[in-house]
Amino acid sequence: MNRVHMTPIGVIHSCFKEKFGIPRQAGLVEEVISRLEILPPYDRDEAFRGLTDFSHLWISYLFHGVPGHWRTMVRPPRLGGNRSVGVFASRSPFRPNRLGLSCVTLQEIQREAGRLFLVLQGGDFLDQTPVLDIKPYLPYADCLPHARGGYASEAPCARFQVLFTAIAREACLLQGRRLGIDLLKLLEKLLSYDPRPGYQEKSSTRSTCWMRLFDFEIRFRIEGDRVQVMEITG
Amino acid sequence: MNRVHMTPIGVIHSCFKEKFGIPRQAGLVEEVISRLEILPPYDRDEAFRGLTDFSHLWISYLFHGVPGHWRTMVRPPRLGGNRSVGVFASRSPFRPNRLGLSCVTLQEIQREAGRLFLVLQGGDFLDQTPVLDIKPYLPYADCLPHARGGYASEAPCARFQVLFTAIAREACLLQGRRLGIDLLKLLEKLLSYDPRPGYQEKSSTRSTCWMRLFDFEIRFRIEGDRVQVMEITG
Repeated sequence: MNRVHMTPIGVIHSCFKEKFGIPRQAGLVEEVISRLEILPPYDRDEAFRGLTDFSHLWISYLFHGVPGHWRTMVRPPRLGGNRSVGVFASRSPFRPNRLGLSCVTLQEIQREAGRLFLVLQGGDFLDQTPVLDIKPYLPYADCLPHARGGYASEAPCARFQVLFTAIAREACLLQGRRLGIDLLKLLEKLLSYDPRPGYQEKSSTRSTCWMRLFDFEIRFRIEGDRVQVMEITG
Repeated sequence: MNRVHMTPIGVIHSCFKEKFGIPRQAGLVEEVISRLEILPPYDRDEAFRGLTDFSHLWISYLFHGVPGHWRTMVRPPRLGGNRSVGVFASRSPFRPNRLGLSCVTLQEIQREAGRLFLVLQGGDFLDQTPVLDIKPYLPYADCLPHARGGYASEAPCARFQVLFTAIAREACLLQGRRLGIDLLKLLEKLLSYDPRPGYQEKSSTRSTCWMRLFDFEIRFRIEGDRVQVMEITG
């Protein structure tokens, strides 16, 4: 069949500058705030009239920063990264057409220096993600409580207790104030789900990781069922 | 931003040969069965392994048979076709990139003469719809019972009682047997929702309509809160 051409209608500004640390699914960490900038000629107020009557939106986007080719089978993190399923039985980015789909909360619509932004809560977007479409979430059609969810029947569990060293806590409060967010709470939520990729060796009792977030790096140590945030460096 | 190129991974075979009569939303009429044919090189069994563990799928597709240009505002049928909202506050096909999104039930996966088909229940697809992606429905992430649904908070009501003339009932049974489906039930459900476009004048007490379905035409008359199926012609 014929090729299809699309033009991004917007771009996501997100605290996630790399894949590592992005929540496994939209809605898991509602402390994550992203801003979707609508690009011209789509940034007209009329095109969004009535949107704030809906609490949630579907965002159709393009996975970027992944290779152009797709895989027939993938290893979802939910299966521990060591069992394979077909790519269409997953939400993996390694898919034909690289289409992503996330449901987020619409917090507000802002007009800032002529530019139009949708403020989104609970996103799982990499920074600079190109957005192709926005649709309202319709509970009567989209909410199916009796649907069978296969290997992902239950929400992932927050498995870690998150602790901070004194120096990390202080840096966290400082950076949080600068950004105008509760960074302690955001980090607690993000790290409570195991942020490491499914395929990473997890049997080691101790491991040290780095995560980029906003414009700084976070170093933390995983030990048993605890994560300790060691330091935050700008 | 740069243009994006996509290639359809499949095509829908549906009983709806024109827009008129297609249910207003996926899932409304579960008697509708569509077949999604997966095109090479995507038609490999491995790419769908594990998919039947999920009861429902998201289908991302391209609205076809609509003009290439988009509208900033549209008049959703749910608002009687006479109130406008922004195109992004609707699921109208007249949108940038013409992306459609429907949640359907996966009935089975069939391999027939080497071709791979997904049998879908409850679709709202025009025949020959190009499909761009298939994803499993994840209840824990996608089912949000407390979401606010704006002007579409409730499912549309089936407002009509559907009756058949003797000749129409007989033709219906005959065509149903030929197709191997319960055509009476399908028509009853389809016509019980008002199939006329929102903008059509509905104050007239009596109107006669034609609808194409499969390879025949259905003539029916709307009178008050009743629809009478008059005849079915091949």
